[in-house]
Amino acid sequence: MSRSRPARSSRRQNREAAAAKAAALQQLHWGQLAYIDDPINPLDEEGVQKIHDAAMRVLEEVGILFLNDEARAVLKDAGCDVDDNTQNVRFDRDWVMEKAKLAPSSFTMTPRNPDRAIEIGNGKAAFGMVASPPNSMDLEKGRRVGNRQDYQDLIRLSQAFNCINFNGGYPVEPIDIHASIRHLDAIYDLLTLTDKIIHAYSLGPERVEDAMEMVRIAAGLTVEEFDAKPRMFTNINSSSPLKHDWPMLDGAMRLARRNQPVIIAPFTLAGAMAPVTIVGSVVQQIAECLAAVALLQEINPGNPVVMGAFTSNVDMKSGSPAFGTPEYMRAMQISGQMARFYDIPWRGSNANAANAPDAQAVWESQNSLFSVLSGHCNVVFHAAGWVEGGLSASFEKVLIDCEMIQQWMYYNRPLDLSEDELGLDAIREVGPNGHFFGCDHTQARYKDAFYSPFLSDWRNFEAWQEAGSIRTPERAHHLCKKILASFEPPPMDDAIREELEAFIAKRKEEGGAATDF
Amino acid sequence: MSRSRPARSSRRQNREAAAAKAAALQQLHWGQLAYIDDPINPLDEEGVQKIHDAAMRVLEEVGILFLNDEARAVLKDAGCDVDDNTQNVRFDRDWVMEKAKLAPSSFTMTPRNPDRAIEIGNGKAAFGMVASPPNSMDLEKGRRVGNRQDYQDLIRLSQAFNCINFNGGYPVEPIDIHASIRHLDAIYDLLTLTDKIIHAYSLGPERVEDAMEMVRIAAGLTVEEFDAKPRMFTNINSSSPLKHDWPMLDGAMRLARRNQPVIIAPFTLAGAMAPVTIVGSVVQQIAECLAAVALLQEINPGNPVVMGAFTSNVDMKSGSPAFGTPEYMRAMQISGQMARFYDIPWRGSNANAANAPDAQAVWESQNSLFSVLSGHCNVVFHAAGWVEGGLSASFEKVLIDCEMIQQWMYYNRPLDLSEDELGLDAIREVGPNGHFFGCDHTQARYKDAFYSPFLSDWRNFEAWQEAGSIRTPERAHHLCKKILASFEPPPMDDAIREELEAFIAKRKEEGGAATDF
Repeated sequence: MSRSRPARSSRRQNREAAAAKAAALQQLHWGQLAYIDDPINPLDEEGVQKIHDAAMRVLEEVGILFLNDEARAVLKDAGCDVDDNTQNVRFDRDWVMEKAKLAPSSFTMTPRNPDRAIEIGNGKAAFGMVASPPNSMDLEKGRRVGNRQDYQDLIRLSQAFNCINFNGGYPVEPIDIHASIRHLDAIYDLLTLTDKIIHAYSLGPERVEDAMEMVRIAAGLTVEEFDAKPRMFTNINSSSPLKHDWPMLDGAMRLARRNQPVIIAPFTLAGAMAPVTIVGSVVQQIAECLAAVALLQEINPGNPVVMGAFTSNVDMKSGSPAFGTPEYMRAMQISGQMARFYDIPWRGSNANAANAPDAQAVWESQNSLFSVLSGHCNVVFHAAGWVEGGLSASFEKVLIDCEMIQQWMYYNRPLDLSEDELGLDAIREVGPNGHFFGCDHTQARYKDAFYSPFLSDWRNFEAWQEAGSIRTPERAHHLCKKILASFEPPPMDDAIREELEAFIAKRKEEGGAATDF
Repeated sequence: MSRSRPARSSRRQNREAAAAKAAALQQLHWGQLAYIDDPINPLDEEGVQKIHDAAMRVLEEVGILFLNDEARAVLKDAGCDVDDNTQNVRFDRDWVMEKAKLAPSSFTMTPRNPDRAIEIGNGKAAFGMVASPPNSMDLEKGRRVGNRQDYQDLIRLSQAFNCINFNGGYPVEPIDIHASIRHLDAIYDLLTLTDKIIHAYSLGPERVEDAMEMVRIAAGLTVEEFDAKPRMFTNINSSSPLKHDWPMLDGAMRLARRNQPVIIAPFTLAGAMAPVTIVGSVVQQIAECLAAVALLQEINPGNPVVMGAFTSNVDMKSGSPAFGTPEYMRAMQISGQMARFYDIPWRGSNANAANAPDAQAVWESQNSLFSVLSGHCNVVFHAAGWVEGGLSASFEKVLIDCEMIQQWMYYNRPLDLSEDELGLDAIREVGPNGHFFGCDHTQARYKDAFYSPFLSDWRNFEAWQEAGSIRTPERAHHLCKKILASFEPPPMDDAIREELEAFIAKRKEEGGAATDF
């Protein structure tokens, strides 16, 4: 029985929940950012060829380790130069490019609520919640180790904000759930507290298979329906330099066999896991990424994949990773230009290395957002809440980021240059001695003429001071509490919830997943 | 006698001063940002023509008030349709465009230290210090009415930062100096505490003439030498809608007659002093600006002028001006595209409406910086220190802005795609099981491989917490004090200083300037 359409009563619940949320938060409607400017292309045609050629030479002359027998067997069968002793695989560039051409230039992922389907590619961006930090922080309780309460609250925020299009993993690791069963409870929370696209960690066969089964159940799909199109995704990281690990490859191959998208994001930190030059790091990033793209296209021609870009630099004084730097900005834009060359969607991140949601966090995040968006990024990971180079999820930063993302979305609205918008009649009517507050042209438009921020305080200094001189993080903190207090989960049929819970109970009884990853 | 070259002893002093400053502040070298990306052009060719045509229709059909008899006389002589009763002037579009074509597409301004000359136009940006707020603020003493001590300290910061290319006015109004002689003391401070280009307010003939004379004396120039090329500039604002006031026009004409540049910046706040639509406001901005451009070109064909863009929106709830909004971003980029159409340099601003140097201040400022720079702005007013919609200069924000500006400058460094930069040999050498910290490729580059921020804290959370959890504004505050404590003014010949002081004494005896503006 297909349960993919919500029942009438659920729709009503949905409207009520939306109304409750609206009280706490005035925001843009659900949707995706669609680019209207040309992308910034840092390379000329020769530059594109140089980066491409260098990446191909890495694949041909140096090779990539595939620490997975199955993956190497597939590549060997396909004619790659496989050394099972060292586990190194070298590739022919024509073969790699032939495989890369099979990857779709865009695709759609459909979660349990089909209204939340998102398009990956096609001149659009999808924004995802912060993923995978071990800690969370807020102004009230400071920084602490991730736990399920914070995990659920962060998920609630990701559901509450229309500008967040998907969940890219656990917004904080719920450490207080035992690792063997954590994925069951964590995915249950994701599937019941949100109705948006979710991600499955490629951390062993049980976790990946359980995640796919739970997504299938939650959407009320048959196995065939699930397999028919993208319903979720996984993100794998190469273990740079030049290495794909067993569980990542295993998960990626499991998803690819069922037509589910795979993002391949090398973590090529210039000067540490990759050459100290940004272009050298991007060369390595592309080589590592395309090696996995080719494997997955060999397994399932046409499977959706996304080229990940995570190249940044380290602080050469301390070796700490830095993000939102000038180097990161160029790395993102170059990655975007190369992804367009390969005609495959690409992933960037809203990254920063600040330890608090302060000025540094914002300039680094704005640098990140500017560069991924000016590079026409299709999947913006960690779009809201990332601080501390990914070691913490900040509740206040979630709101700050969503405010900035909304502004970037509004910025990408098409211009209207109609005669009426050009305002000649209003200028004539008001003349040199009036003002425009009261004129018809203004009165007809003022209610929604401009973007209305939910977090900015535009009062004058005296009024702001009178009200307690509340700075942005404090405002975000208060608003966050209101949003959480008024949160209503999206509707789910009781039968589906029971089926999900029964599956979890069974899998817990069976012991969950191995914990040696 | 020409004194334009500093004596040998001054050069030594200069070096020593630089060394002292270096101890407090690690920064980029003096220079200008040169754009390497294409600008973002929000309009297609038809859109450019629509905006242009609408602006021309404002000039032809509605007209602009010129509240200055002399200006109207010039325009009448030139054949414009002048109504001396209403003071309204209507223009023929062909005449306006003929005049606009006379304006140079770029020019150089040379201050008393010729090493600090800046180019306006030619694909470059010049960044100016915050100008004209009535208040200043810092973390220690809060917000207060502008005074000479703060004024001087802000000027010292503008001199200390290499990324600040000019002073666009008084960084805060030194209210404790009587208005009749304020300009004498204030310009003395600007000319002795900095050696960069300065601005003169067009607030009455005495102030303008005194400023030009003082700049001439400080640079050791004859009158002929001063008049030979741009040495300073004025910025005038139209009194929107559709009006140029007497003192602004008077000052602009005085400078134009001596070949000194004039920036014309209408303050077209959408929904208040201009149509509620952004494109309508830009239409009005261009009409107001080109009317003054045409006047100045009629007076002195080829005089350097700059098209100002200050279009933003108001908060429709309160009527307060808002800055760094999505609307502001597009207004800046459209203004840039139109300025390129007219082939005249353009001015934007690093604006925001926050009441403290917090997250909002930074996201609004980054929006502003992104939009003016992606629009290839040539003169970035208020680049460092502006908060509160221009009502305060924040000491901490000066440092935050300079940090962001430096990153944008670094971002605009050309890419190197040489074989060695592509890193193939390093990737080969390190292989899949090593790291890049120690390899030759890294060792040869690590010292200056990456941009090194002066204000970011990239330590890990524990080290940051151990050191007191210092957030960005507090870090800026401490560094600001250090910079001021180690400040050394740029050298000035004793004879020149005496001549300046004698001039000021004489003018004070004469009573300074009228105070009815």
